[in-house]
Amino acid sequence: MTDKNLAQILGTRYPIIQGAMANISDGRFAAAASNAGALGVIASGAMTPDELAESIKLARSLTDQPFGVNIMLKSPYAAQMADVVADSRVPFVTTGAGSPGAYVERWKQAGITVFPVVSSTALARRMVSCGVDGVIAEGTESGGHVGEMATMALVPQVADAVEVPVVAAGGIASGRQMVAALALGACGVQLGTCLLVSEECPVHDNYKQALLAASDSDTVVTGRFSGSPVRQLKNHMARAYLKDEKSGQTRDELGHYMIGAMRRAVREGDVRDGSVLTGQVAGMLHDIKPLSKILEQLYQETLDAYGALTGRLAGIYGRPAVEAAAQVNEVR
Amino acid sequence: MTDKNLAQILGTRYPIIQGAMANISDGRFAAAASNAGALGVIASGAMTPDELAESIKLARSLTDQPFGVNIMLKSPYAAQMADVVADSRVPFVTTGAGSPGAYVERWKQAGITVFPVVSSTALARRMVSCGVDGVIAEGTESGGHVGEMATMALVPQVADAVEVPVVAAGGIASGRQMVAALALGACGVQLGTCLLVSEECPVHDNYKQALLAASDSDTVVTGRFSGSPVRQLKNHMARAYLKDEKSGQTRDELGHYMIGAMRRAVREGDVRDGSVLTGQVAGMLHDIKPLSKILEQLYQETLDAYGALTGRLAGIYGRPAVEAAAQVNEVR
Repeated sequence: MTDKNLAQILGTRYPIIQGAMANISDGRFAAAASNAGALGVIASGAMTPDELAESIKLARSLTDQPFGVNIMLKSPYAAQMADVVADSRVPFVTTGAGSPGAYVERWKQAGITVFPVVSSTALARRMVSCGVDGVIAEGTESGGHVGEMATMALVPQVADAVEVPVVAAGGIASGRQMVAALALGACGVQLGTCLLVSEECPVHDNYKQALLAASDSDTVVTGRFSGSPVRQLKNHMARAYLKDEKSGQTRDELGHYMIGAMRRAVREGDVRDGSVLTGQVAGMLHDIKPLSKILEQLYQETLDAYGALTGRLAGIYGRPAVEAAAQVNEVR
Repeated sequence: MTDKNLAQILGTRYPIIQGAMANISDGRFAAAASNAGALGVIASGAMTPDELAESIKLARSLTDQPFGVNIMLKSPYAAQMADVVADSRVPFVTTGAGSPGAYVERWKQAGITVFPVVSSTALARRMVSCGVDGVIAEGTESGGHVGEMATMALVPQVADAVEVPVVAAGGIASGRQMVAALALGACGVQLGTCLLVSEECPVHDNYKQALLAASDSDTVVTGRFSGSPVRQLKNHMARAYLKDEKSGQTRDELGHYMIGAMRRAVREGDVRDGSVLTGQVAGMLHDIKPLSKILEQLYQETLDAYGALTGRLAGIYGRPAVEAAAQVNEVR
């Protein structure tokens, strides 16, 4: 594994990627995230290729910082989207839901850094064999589409399985979790849920208020059996979905729940019958702040959490042993 | 939160609890874990009260180190089990599956330290209001009965919610994960899966070999819909269970799968039709070692992982800022 941290790889102030959120992280939001010091990422999942091209143009007009695009590989437009990012030479691409193998060579020729999102070591290995630059290991505690492995178990196993840099995603909204992610072997983190309650986030205020009111155990995963697991707030819609899923309904039979469900929540603020995607860190969100404040606070908290960790280890091992270990300083 | 670490609270060499494993962690195994430096814990889940009393006696004859007992509160014998531990004055009790409220006063009078296992902040708060001494926050990546919250998201939220010490469980089998757990706010950890492949562990060799052969994504959770979620190896039995569960079968209809399933795997080595309980760290297990080696290695790796973390943070913040943070040393 390289010893570069994610900020050095990306050319950003912080070693932080803003996770792509379909219907939410458009060019304006991605530019705001980049201006605030993270790597902003445009989610192309709910866009047409033309809309993506427009969104990239908009982001470029709003920031001189690097930003990226996420391509959902199951999208019917995936190949066209792949062309758009190559033609636009965005510096960074993340991918979800499938293998970007068919596009990696073209992207690399365009100078693009490629980090697919993976949920297992098998997928991480397959991606690396396609020539990607790194992987984002995303745990099941995150919001939206999720795998089964949790961040704590996933990140070190992926870090052991591949030689490329690993970014941790899922369950990260505080300095303690940032330190944990780096301890697990990640070179940086991807954040989603905690950025939803930023001032700049274009979701309806009802959506933000629902997250602020949520506690840790207020999320559920719909679609585990029907084949499309999605973590979201346990609202009226999600409960009804789970009831039908439990009775044995198929993905097709359940499909009506999800049609327009994200837009209902994001645009119209319908947090009862809309799909309020969120990770398990929802319980840690307490106020709406500018992106710059959220990121700056996280960045500072990380050092505080490291100090607390050091004190805790000194209590266990004695301070001299801990100080000696800190001097070894070998990044693995 | 107290600033004592778990080794100080328990009087053990390491800040590590051996997680209770029904049908597996009997008096002999718990004593071996205690002799190796952790807190051994007898799982009473599959025992009668008399068997538990015998098991405690056996453990006492095999170690002069502290050990504990886990009481499954849904057991029909729970009240009698509660009496047995109070009468035997075992130093430590963990509880699962329910509230120990009815027994805490008696246990405290007997000088017993009580740490229930919790899977949410709501449960943690309820337990603390019963007067327990600490909680074990267990993430969904662990083996056996699981909740929905993952360790990364659960531990800091529980640590913020209660004033008692918090032990992290789920997804911990290496020094990197131990550092992560302490960074998240835990005073120590509980281990299960990685102790299954110890020489002393009384499971059938087929069980150990199945874990050594497993990769990260070889576990599944059966019973999420039928109401008794259990993480286990994705073997023939688990696949058949999930197929029937997906078709809408109820807990009663699915019950036949689990009857004797643990014993089949643990005693008879039937890893095809038995229930091979394991956490998501199964993919990190590579050989069978004595308990003392597993624990000693984890304890040493933790300092190494802290050194690697320090190097990684120095790359991000610069070494002076990291050294200054380490001096603050306030345990929170």
